[in-house]
Amino acid sequence: MDTKAQASFQERALEQLTVDAAKIAQLIHVQMDNLTMPSCPLYEEVLDTQMFGLSREIEFATKLGLIEREQGKQILDSLEKKLSLLHDAYTDK
Amino acid sequence: MDTKAQASFQERALEQLTVDAAKIAQLIHVQMDNLTMPSCPLYEEVLDTQMFGLSREIEFATKLGLIEREQGKQILDSLEKKLSLLHDAYTDK
Repeated sequence: MDTKAQASFQERALEQLTVDAAKIAQLIHVQMDNLTMPSCPLYEEVLDTQMFGLSREIEFATKLGLIEREQGKQILDSLEKKLSLLHDAYTDK
Repeated sequence: MDTKAQASFQERALEQLTVDAAKIAQLIHVQMDNLTMPSCPLYEEVLDTQMFGLSREIEFATKLGLIEREQGKQILDSLEKKLSLLHDAYTDK
């Protein structure tokens, strides 16, 4: 089996997903820093859309065997937790 | 270069994208067959969402070098044309 080329695609897949997840985390971070502003429904929609896009990328990579299902789940879970914190921060305000 | 393993991921990427594009084409097809029914905004939103999801998969596969940019473009263009026909069919009704 061509372990080297496979590893290359697999490593790049995980790298790319991590980059895309970091972009969403950054969006959440910015919103957390601006909690004094009213909750913006458009912002939430953007976050939802980005989460959906990332979940599709992860599903695709998983189906191809580029990443383990568990790796994809961890990336999404970590973002879901951040989103939940953001939501709580607005609810407690 | 490990052409064999690379080809494997590349072939599977294109296959998977083709399968996902076919699902959207099927959604459009079903709607075309039901033109007598009123245009359903929810249906359009589902199609938009699915198109966005597919475009993210294609972008991801392109960035990884699993498919050529042109291949991804052709898949999306083909679906856009079908969507446009569906839209025209409603407009001309």
